[in-house]
Amino acid sequence: MILIKNITIVTQNKEREIVKKGSLVIEKEYIKVIGKSKSIEKEYSRKAKKVIDGKNKVIMPGLINSHGHLAMTLLRGYADDMDLEKWWLEYVYPVESKFTRKKVYQGSLLAMIEMIKSGTTCFIDFYYYEDEVAWAAKKLNMRGFLGCAILDFPTFLYKNADEALEITKKVIKKFSNNSLLKVILAPHMFQTTSLETYVKVWELTKQYGLLLTTHMSETKAEVNFSIKKYKKRPVEVLSQASILDENVILAHCCWVNKKEINLLKKSNVSIVHCPVSNMKLASGIMPLPELLRSKINVSLGTDGACSNNNLDMFEEMKTTALIHKVNKLNPTIIDAQTVLDMATINGAKTLKIEDQIGSIEIGKRADLIIINFEKPHLIPCHNIISHLVYSVSGSDVETTIINGKIVMENRKIKNIDEDKFLQEMMLI
Amino acid sequence: MILIKNITIVTQNKEREIVKKGSLVIEKEYIKVIGKSKSIEKEYSRKAKKVIDGKNKVIMPGLINSHGHLAMTLLRGYADDMDLEKWWLEYVYPVESKFTRKKVYQGSLLAMIEMIKSGTTCFIDFYYYEDEVAWAAKKLNMRGFLGCAILDFPTFLYKNADEALEITKKVIKKFSNNSLLKVILAPHMFQTTSLETYVKVWELTKQYGLLLTTHMSETKAEVNFSIKKYKKRPVEVLSQASILDENVILAHCCWVNKKEINLLKKSNVSIVHCPVSNMKLASGIMPLPELLRSKINVSLGTDGACSNNNLDMFEEMKTTALIHKVNKLNPTIIDAQTVLDMATINGAKTLKIEDQIGSIEIGKRADLIIINFEKPHLIPCHNIISHLVYSVSGSDVETTIINGKIVMENRKIKNIDEDKFLQEMMLI
Repeated sequence: MILIKNITIVTQNKEREIVKKGSLVIEKEYIKVIGKSKSIEKEYSRKAKKVIDGKNKVIMPGLINSHGHLAMTLLRGYADDMDLEKWWLEYVYPVESKFTRKKVYQGSLLAMIEMIKSGTTCFIDFYYYEDEVAWAAKKLNMRGFLGCAILDFPTFLYKNADEALEITKKVIKKFSNNSLLKVILAPHMFQTTSLETYVKVWELTKQYGLLLTTHMSETKAEVNFSIKKYKKRPVEVLSQASILDENVILAHCCWVNKKEINLLKKSNVSIVHCPVSNMKLASGIMPLPELLRSKINVSLGTDGACSNNNLDMFEEMKTTALIHKVNKLNPTIIDAQTVLDMATINGAKTLKIEDQIGSIEIGKRADLIIINFEKPHLIPCHNIISHLVYSVSGSDVETTIINGKIVMENRKIKNIDEDKFLQEMMLI
Repeated sequence: MILIKNITIVTQNKEREIVKKGSLVIEKEYIKVIGKSKSIEKEYSRKAKKVIDGKNKVIMPGLINSHGHLAMTLLRGYADDMDLEKWWLEYVYPVESKFTRKKVYQGSLLAMIEMIKSGTTCFIDFYYYEDEVAWAAKKLNMRGFLGCAILDFPTFLYKNADEALEITKKVIKKFSNNSLLKVILAPHMFQTTSLETYVKVWELTKQYGLLLTTHMSETKAEVNFSIKKYKKRPVEVLSQASILDENVILAHCCWVNKKEINLLKKSNVSIVHCPVSNMKLASGIMPLPELLRSKINVSLGTDGACSNNNLDMFEEMKTTALIHKVNKLNPTIIDAQTVLDMATINGAKTLKIEDQIGSIEIGKRADLIIINFEKPHLIPCHNIISHLVYSVSGSDVETTIINGKIVMENRKIKNIDEDKFLQEMMLI
């Protein structure tokens, strides 16, 4: 049992309640008690195995990074300031082709350490060797969705989509019974993956009751490709193939038009916004205000470190607010609370586990982060939500708790010798 | 004498040289030696009073924040997500009206601590009670330009522009003979300051040989105001009044057209880009690629913490690259090196002290920062410049040196009891 006392609790519950001088009790994997500090302290101070004093600190739900390619941390800063085609064909793809099982494990572990240190407690990965990603997540006790990337293109893991599907089935069977890790199927994108393959993947998700995620309308080129090949825009293609429902998660959606937004709304899909990557690759600006107005669920993702170039969800939140304000020349188009929702409770909705994570409520899993506000750039504090979105950086996260277990305390990662691992990684 | 050995030196010299396994010797205020580590180590290890081991670290010129309002840290997060007019008239201006001399001192000190901790070694302030700002800078040994704000509007320091000018003259005389601090005159903006006042300020700058900085074409509303009042756009008005030369620093310039860009180029002014503030207030997007193509000197600023809401110049660099890439849908429109230049050597040019700071060269003042690259989000390192712009955050700065003096070491600020000061500030 863990007691966290005398802390400001940003609950992100339905009322978006903030409890000042609050306390919170964690029992096993769950949040057992939330409330004003004094009475709770009295009852649990002795029972608790560990007590954390939260003076000048804020506790909030762990951030949910709902689109990324973890092992691509290995390509951080490897290819910047160039066209997407050159980026992919001349830089990323050739190096990735030489990736091994071990490299994916190392790159994913590195990504997870970075995520835990910047307040992310749950991720969707989208890559290869997802069993290796699972081992890395198990080592650190991280919650994650293992996105098995499926392409018609040959990759370093398989020659074609059929091989990919076979490998994926094995991963599904291996991780069907895990409370922290779930498999999610990830057909890549229109330019690399045929509609036929999308259909096969879709059938597999139905067979096993899984979620599906894919890159969608990230670039103008992708939309043009779709129009040329299918005489339709990408969302229309998926819609007509009946591959759009509440179990589908579309990353990017920079180039969806009004008609497509209506289709997205009707089908109850979730969408992941990755503004830093979209800006860095110059892919485009997602029509976020329009999507939110249509009441579509939108969450946030960092994308891979090769197009970001870090995995800091706090930076992603701030960038989300900034880009849409200036894009519409309207500072009221999106506010801090809306952005914070995208990184927390909306992420949980995207993953269909909003009954388990995404807010601090009794009975939910304890995926929590503690931020120290005793920092020059967080003083004074007129508005906590504003600070979380506009002033905090990932490095302000002091303690990270996943599924009731402390995975980082006072910025020290548990379960691995971080210094030793980083030194190994610097030599790669 | 300080010896920093075995470090990667990002010189930002004319050739943009990077010295790996380098050493650097500081004598008094100056950089005395730069080169490969081994021979320098041998000669200076014993002579040096202090030796810093730079293994896995990068040393670079301190960042130059060339537009800000330091004491507005006190209003951090006080007014977000609202129209500029409401922001200013209903929130900022009324609270500022109650500001005292002491508050300006405290707010400026807080800003400087934040700046030193995130790698800024030199600033332009733009506010009131600049003698108080000077005391704060002296306490921390910071390099700064004391921008005396001059408005026709009444402020908490004076009733009108004539009073402002009298106060400013006193500040000029007080700080005319200081190596770290210089006075700069700061007529506010067209909507609050008449052309008549601009002319008076201009005469004062010529009388004392000072620089002038002002807000220029920040918003569409400001341009419309100028057209209505003067039948001309803002830059044209200043140009016609002959208030544009190499000693002028214009902040923002979001709404300058081709004709104005030509005028700016001809007059050799410097321009300060503040993308985060411009985005957050939804002011607009500066035509940076066009300005750079015209070979106009552009540096970077955070603006005040009330429209940012922090003073992290690393964040400002990344945002600069991101916004212009996506705005032009062209990832090659600006690269990491160009952005790094804006935050270092271009800042020094803006301030007309590029012979003293802005790069690591023998004989220049030692304004330097050391960044620890042994962090999960900075591994691996394929490209140092990319990391500095796209992956580093202000909190990665470990040591800050200004004018040859260490002002922060291992994130501990010298010259002030930071914890005590922050605790006082949290009670305000």
